[in-house]
Amino acid sequence: MAKRTGQLRLGAFLYPAGHHIAAWRHPDAQADAGINFKHYVQLAQAAQAAKFDLLFLADGVGTRGDNLDFLSRTAHSYIAQFEPITLLSALAAVTENIGLVGTASTSFNEPYHIARKFASLDHISGGRAGWNLVTSSNEHEAKNFNRDKHFDHGERYERATEFAEVVDRLWDSWEDDAFLRDKEQGRFFNPAKRHVLDHKGRFFQVKGPLNVARSPQGQPVVVQAGSSEAGRALAARTAEVIFTAQQTHRDAIDFYADVKGRLDQYGRHPDDLKIMPGVMPIVGRTESEAREKFEHLQSLIDPAVGLALVSGLTGGFDLSAYPLDGPIPELPETNASKSRQLLTLELARRENLTIRQLYLRVAGARGHWQVVGTPEQIADQLEERFVQYGADGYNIMPAVLPGSLTDFIELVLPELRRRGLFRTEYEGATLRANLGPRPVNRYAAQKAGAVAA
Amino acid sequence: MAKRTGQLRLGAFLYPAGHHIAAWRHPDAQADAGINFKHYVQLAQAAQAAKFDLLFLADGVGTRGDNLDFLSRTAHSYIAQFEPITLLSALAAVTENIGLVGTASTSFNEPYHIARKFASLDHISGGRAGWNLVTSSNEHEAKNFNRDKHFDHGERYERATEFAEVVDRLWDSWEDDAFLRDKEQGRFFNPAKRHVLDHKGRFFQVKGPLNVARSPQGQPVVVQAGSSEAGRALAARTAEVIFTAQQTHRDAIDFYADVKGRLDQYGRHPDDLKIMPGVMPIVGRTESEAREKFEHLQSLIDPAVGLALVSGLTGGFDLSAYPLDGPIPELPETNASKSRQLLTLELARRENLTIRQLYLRVAGARGHWQVVGTPEQIADQLEERFVQYGADGYNIMPAVLPGSLTDFIELVLPELRRRGLFRTEYEGATLRANLGPRPVNRYAAQKAGAVAA
Repeated sequence: MAKRTGQLRLGAFLYPAGHHIAAWRHPDAQADAGINFKHYVQLAQAAQAAKFDLLFLADGVGTRGDNLDFLSRTAHSYIAQFEPITLLSALAAVTENIGLVGTASTSFNEPYHIARKFASLDHISGGRAGWNLVTSSNEHEAKNFNRDKHFDHGERYERATEFAEVVDRLWDSWEDDAFLRDKEQGRFFNPAKRHVLDHKGRFFQVKGPLNVARSPQGQPVVVQAGSSEAGRALAARTAEVIFTAQQTHRDAIDFYADVKGRLDQYGRHPDDLKIMPGVMPIVGRTESEAREKFEHLQSLIDPAVGLALVSGLTGGFDLSAYPLDGPIPELPETNASKSRQLLTLELARRENLTIRQLYLRVAGARGHWQVVGTPEQIADQLEERFVQYGADGYNIMPAVLPGSLTDFIELVLPELRRRGLFRTEYEGATLRANLGPRPVNRYAAQKAGAVAA
Repeated sequence: MAKRTGQLRLGAFLYPAGHHIAAWRHPDAQADAGINFKHYVQLAQAAQAAKFDLLFLADGVGTRGDNLDFLSRTAHSYIAQFEPITLLSALAAVTENIGLVGTASTSFNEPYHIARKFASLDHISGGRAGWNLVTSSNEHEAKNFNRDKHFDHGERYERATEFAEVVDRLWDSWEDDAFLRDKEQGRFFNPAKRHVLDHKGRFFQVKGPLNVARSPQGQPVVVQAGSSEAGRALAARTAEVIFTAQQTHRDAIDFYADVKGRLDQYGRHPDDLKIMPGVMPIVGRTESEAREKFEHLQSLIDPAVGLALVSGLTGGFDLSAYPLDGPIPELPETNASKSRQLLTLELARRENLTIRQLYLRVAGARGHWQVVGTPEQIADQLEERFVQYGADGYNIMPAVLPGSLTDFIELVLPELRRRGLFRTEYEGATLRANLGPRPVNRYAAQKAGAVAA
């Protein structure tokens, strides 16, 4: 395979006070970030000035967990945050170029609302909207939506597949030139360019048409974040960007090959889907400065938070009665997430970790790829994974906000640009113009086909 | 009763190209208004500079009707418009004082989503969000949400009452001082100030808490627009503002007395609910200029649109085979909206109207109160209804946008100010500060009561 050329796509994944589990306790962190609009305006404008492709917002429709002591010690439980669609719409009014990608669950929404809100955001922003389609894996969310339990994994993905199909077709309700607005003739639209969906499926019955004109991007960009077998299949079928957590280059390369290899069966080209793993860079002007920054953040992890996280990863076992600086005790096997439990315990045994060492290892980046070093070292890592076809770009997860985003922009981006790996100007006016071609309206395409045939 | 003093509350009801049925055909109208963000930014900033209390956006979750010829000739069918929550969020970023009130249906939404989005908008806007609670009366909307038919009227209002109660309580999930964000102690919130709803009702099962901190207004302002018996009861119980269509002063005074008289049974004061009828002012520097403006707009009504509207008001009877300038034929009685049909036909018979005269009479303002005249004549009408306790203010419905809003601001507002009827500066920083007191968190109030007892 020839050495890969081209440039990275970069997302700025804005998590209120930062992605490190203890970020909000950092002296420079904006502790009220989740409901501080000015904070987000500054981050969005900084990311835009640095030519990031997009902003990304995660979401949950409920607070996470029942452990009040744990919850009350961490800002990482979606407890006091803006809702993404309202926040992105507001940010659309104070930015001009950067893509605006928000998460919304197919498990607890209706396709008409989601199609409509993202189409509306696409109009407001002049073609910069993206929808991160998730199925929600959190039991606590279901309880806010008339259910005692969540849908099971298979049903969730069947629902998501039908949901995505309905949204996709609603976005084509009107052809691009359907609206004449001919004042003289009194014709507001051309009825031949309006299309009624009339969908009747297993989960949804949606007549249409959407009550929003076709949006500047044709359709908002679809992003997917699931990495399970069902998640990969759904992404290969519907998504244009994947955000994924891949700890090692080897895992990333395997994931990349697997997903790109699935596109052909849906009539898609490998370039139609960009794979952007998450990465938390901790950058210093020297390696020791980077290391110190990291250790400082790690020292802010409250042992109660660390213990609760390890307990979650080891099947709910309460380790608080054991000495923090002693070994992990023998644990009974449980039903919850067996593979994750096994991975965590294997790690602890293999490296002979104490309880504190284990939580420091797993808590900080919450399972994401973390790179600590100089700008050159970080650029080396990002370049290596890119040229080995493990990524088309990255979703940058700043450890502390605003500081770690500033660090990345001021220290790492110049190094990436020096290597020709990142843009100095936006190529196009819309998010899609940077990512891929504008989709053709299916009905217009059918007509063109009929004319050509 | 002593002569009423005080000042009017004014809303700017922004309907894309204007409220007149033919507005979009006017030479000065912004025909693509529904998806033109700059248009809305200009309107919002103009209304704010004029010190309007609030912007108001109507909504429908579907296009209206199946008559394609009619639909294609009018912009008044929610066919190519921004979704209100996204639009208001974007406008929040470019305004500072004006209230932002958006419509959302309780029939096709979940209370957790609605509570969350309006709380988020309240944070983004610094305390300017309002929710106009409607139940939807449009059969076409139901078909976009997994139903063949709409809920019946009674069920709709039972659902709405429970929905409003859940939203109200979700907004109290956190006390105002629940979030400590104490970096030193590692306490993000105080668990004693978090409240779980655990609602299990007929229509909804919602655990809570909301994942947004209590918002700057305590709770976003609740608006209601229904005027039926069930609508009045719901408004008296839950709303802080009513938008209503009252054609005559007499009707307005009766409505006002009826609704204000219902508040006591819910432990509320008459001032806790502001009644703001809609009005479409057509203003000229002289009476004949105003009259000419109106006639010009009326002349733009396409007969096909006029006929379809009259047909809708007379039970679906197709009048297109009869001469436009001849009398209304005898019509069979139908099931649909009997009282409306009767009112329309009585009007036609009483005044011996032709088909064209009838549609001109009912089509223009779409059933709303319309005042055509000089600034003094319009101010007289607005003052008269106010001092007679028929209104606490008005929801101004500009006939054509942006022109009719500019006319009202430049010509009518100075006259209202000369009479001391409208503010020259905002009194407070939030929407609620102009409308009434900030609500106390129910849980905090209970604790305070327990301490006092």
